[in-house]
Amino acid sequence: MSMTSRRSFLGAIATACALLAGCAAPVRSADPLPSWSEGAAKQSIVAFVAEVTRDGTSGYVPPADRVAVFDNDGTLWSEQPVYVQLAFALDRVKALAPQHPEWQTQEPFASLLKGDVAGALAGGERAIAGIIMATHAGTTSEEFAAIVKDWLATARHPVTGRPYTGMVYQPMLEVLDYLRANGFKTFIVSGGGIEFMRPWTEQVYGIPPEQVVGSSIKVRYELRDGKPVLVRLPELDFIDDKAGKPVGINQHIGRRPILAFGNSDGDFEMLEWTTAGEGPRLGVIVHHDDAGREYAYDRKSHIGRLDRGLDEASTRGWVVISMKNDWRAIYLPATALHATH
Amino acid sequence: MSMTSRRSFLGAIATACALLAGCAAPVRSADPLPSWSEGAAKQSIVAFVAEVTRDGTSGYVPPADRVAVFDNDGTLWSEQPVYVQLAFALDRVKALAPQHPEWQTQEPFASLLKGDVAGALAGGERAIAGIIMATHAGTTSEEFAAIVKDWLATARHPVTGRPYTGMVYQPMLEVLDYLRANGFKTFIVSGGGIEFMRPWTEQVYGIPPEQVVGSSIKVRYELRDGKPVLVRLPELDFIDDKAGKPVGINQHIGRRPILAFGNSDGDFEMLEWTTAGEGPRLGVIVHHDDAGREYAYDRKSHIGRLDRGLDEASTRGWVVISMKNDWRAIYLPATALHATH
Repeated sequence: MSMTSRRSFLGAIATACALLAGCAAPVRSADPLPSWSEGAAKQSIVAFVAEVTRDGTSGYVPPADRVAVFDNDGTLWSEQPVYVQLAFALDRVKALAPQHPEWQTQEPFASLLKGDVAGALAGGERAIAGIIMATHAGTTSEEFAAIVKDWLATARHPVTGRPYTGMVYQPMLEVLDYLRANGFKTFIVSGGGIEFMRPWTEQVYGIPPEQVVGSSIKVRYELRDGKPVLVRLPELDFIDDKAGKPVGINQHIGRRPILAFGNSDGDFEMLEWTTAGEGPRLGVIVHHDDAGREYAYDRKSHIGRLDRGLDEASTRGWVVISMKNDWRAIYLPATALHATH
Repeated sequence: MSMTSRRSFLGAIATACALLAGCAAPVRSADPLPSWSEGAAKQSIVAFVAEVTRDGTSGYVPPADRVAVFDNDGTLWSEQPVYVQLAFALDRVKALAPQHPEWQTQEPFASLLKGDVAGALAGGERAIAGIIMATHAGTTSEEFAAIVKDWLATARHPVTGRPYTGMVYQPMLEVLDYLRANGFKTFIVSGGGIEFMRPWTEQVYGIPPEQVVGSSIKVRYELRDGKPVLVRLPELDFIDDKAGKPVGINQHIGRRPILAFGNSDGDFEMLEWTTAGEGPRLGVIVHHDDAGREYAYDRKSHIGRLDRGLDEASTRGWVVISMKNDWRAIYLPATALHATH
């Protein structure tokens, strides 16, 4: 093929790609992970993708089985100083307070409304469950999605002042793109609420609602003025954390992933389940060791505690990413932020 | 553009399509629904697809929102004289009987083992639940998938003598292909067991496990000899039928479909939920009125009862397909059967 006809052939492919929906991006020759430092962590990811996509070799995995799962809080975006969903719930308590005069004297709401978050959360899991049910139930699914989107549009992280969707990790966005360009289907498997994530994951991560697995409360189908709605009930349905993660994966995805990214011991069983399968497998832990650019926490943190995972990663062959050393950048560049907000 | 350059451009697109994974098939000029008679039913489907894919018009729906849901039993394959999954369960009772000597005297198993199916099922829902739990729980998810596949490879329909996967409706396979070629994502939403369907839906319908929604029993993650497994428990998790279908759609898909196919009143709420949304919507009911080539049943059937749906289809604008008049063929041609069995 002459240079000219080759160029025109590639041009036609590019044109065809632009014309035909769903056309996979051609593999780029430029570095697909520019925010990653050259080192063992990046090399493990690139080598794994090369192995499973090399047709005709023993490590080859057909595209249908290239399932990659990602925890969300602390893996795809920041989870400190409190989970974003908890910040949302606290703001919702304030917004809903006028409709709930009884909250002025009723815990954990009374403490919250006085600005005493620590006092409110001193009630432990029961207090948190009470806050979640009061702020996440009672609306229809569509109303709830709109409330989440409205909140994300204006809420700001207490330390960086960024919108929360600007607290996603640039290196992980590159991994998501890189995997999809290599035929992977990317899923979120999070302890967070499934209906808290779905309104924005497609825009922010390129992950559509049907590829988001999370915790849930029960929902009831009913007619209101002849119009069908799904009503969110103050009743727990499923906790997608720890041993619940492989169960959630089984329920929603129905096949075992070959690649899993997590950051805490809540992801341990997901990593274990993923990497215990046959053929090439990769388990990756994002280690928060960057107090300067993000946060540094692991064995003793109340949020995103990582203890057993650190102990066993090496014997299990899981890759531990140092945010400090392996990531050149942490967050989306500010220019990208302006484009979406 | 000259004819020659146009032809070479189309040729380059076709070549690019062949080279690039995930490239959408170009719209075919040949009839995409050859097993459908020309008539109002076929016309409704074709007109709907044309409307939602015509960019720049008010009816246009972006590919991400082109979600189509299909009931399985009686909509994609035959459900008479008994649901395929019940035939599976009855065969499993026989296969497991040597490990359960107590079944010789314990109902509904005793009647079943004597060949008295009607007597066994006389115990109603409780008897059926007992049979399902005894035959669907107690294994790991992977073991259960293998059992289902092995059974389907040898079991035969009592009337046609065909393998059950040869009892899928050729006109519906064409609809699935046609929709996917037009950017739709196709999902099964069935009252049947999610883990009974997933082992074979990808091969038979082109629908991957993560796009199958169904009823489920609970599953527990545990280690056996240090190896993680998911154990199926004799405890109901979710019934994906009637008002459960919109709930299952919400839980698994997370957005409202624009197109739904069903065949019984168990699909009523799914059709209602789908067609109550804004923009173009299509609800379709497959009416079993072909006693010669398949079965004829509706208002009085114990399986696949269709009563309210028939009453309200016309006022709700749902299309009712007459299998007798609208379908030129019912099942896969025998030649296609040989290719897969």
